[in-house]
Amino acid sequence: MKFRLIVPFLILTASFIAFGQEKQSRKSKNHNSDAAEKGLIKVSIMYPYAEGKTFNMEYYETKHMPMVAELLGSNLVKYTIEKGLASGIPDQQLPYTAIGAFYVKRLDDYQAAIGPKRDAIRADFVNYTNIAPVILVSEVVR
Amino acid sequence: MKFRLIVPFLILTASFIAFGQEKQSRKSKNHNSDAAEKGLIKVSIMYPYAEGKTFNMEYYETKHMPMVAELLGSNLVKYTIEKGLASGIPDQQLPYTAIGAFYVKRLDDYQAAIGPKRDAIRADFVNYTNIAPVILVSEVVR
Repeated sequence: MKFRLIVPFLILTASFIAFGQEKQSRKSKNHNSDAAEKGLIKVSIMYPYAEGKTFNMEYYETKHMPMVAELLGSNLVKYTIEKGLASGIPDQQLPYTAIGAFYVKRLDDYQAAIGPKRDAIRADFVNYTNIAPVILVSEVVR
Repeated sequence: MKFRLIVPFLILTASFIAFGQEKQSRKSKNHNSDAAEKGLIKVSIMYPYAEGKTFNMEYYETKHMPMVAELLGSNLVKYTIEKGLASGIPDQQLPYTAIGAFYVKRLDDYQAAIGPKRDAIRADFVNYTNIAPVILVSEVVR
């Protein structure tokens, strides 16, 4: 009889442990979500639109951005890519063809990672665009 | 003896149900996270930096952006605010003092909500800035 009670007890304990871990993993996931982006440093690489300029989004998304992202290691929280569609002001020209952005924890670590590789990163530009980008370093306020 | 087995069995069942619900709620949370931003429309209101121009971030964050966000209703997935710190290119001027962005499901619903209120929104500009913004409509690729 003792044995018949021990088995469900063990399963019960194991399932409570699993439940606890599930909660914890969800918590650390939330830690990476929007609310926790506040205070991060965002480096935006903005490609201004101009007639005759070209931009290969497929290469940018599948080759260039993943290559740079890999250099950033654990300092990188996430990166985003957006494709310009229109100006939000009627009769104005599209401001940017594309924008890529890296959300990092520390700017100095970003610079230390990118600095030595700057020439290699720039050498890859010709593979997807002939636009000289504008680069904005900002702080995520919300 | 039967009773003594039923109690742990009930607790066990209840804890598995709780565990399952936990998993499900985490799944639907992930559904609203970064991966699910892909395909959304982003409207960025970008305030270019210039000497002598002013921008009150506190008013922007606590009054202006929440006021516009409320107009957008359930079409709005999230909105973000960033504060420009520097150009990422040495010896270049800060490109933008601040950028606010609305991530929406449908551009036409955004325009339908903002259109009739455009004058009221513009009238609030003087409360926080004398900068004429650039507005970019883009698609979230990643």
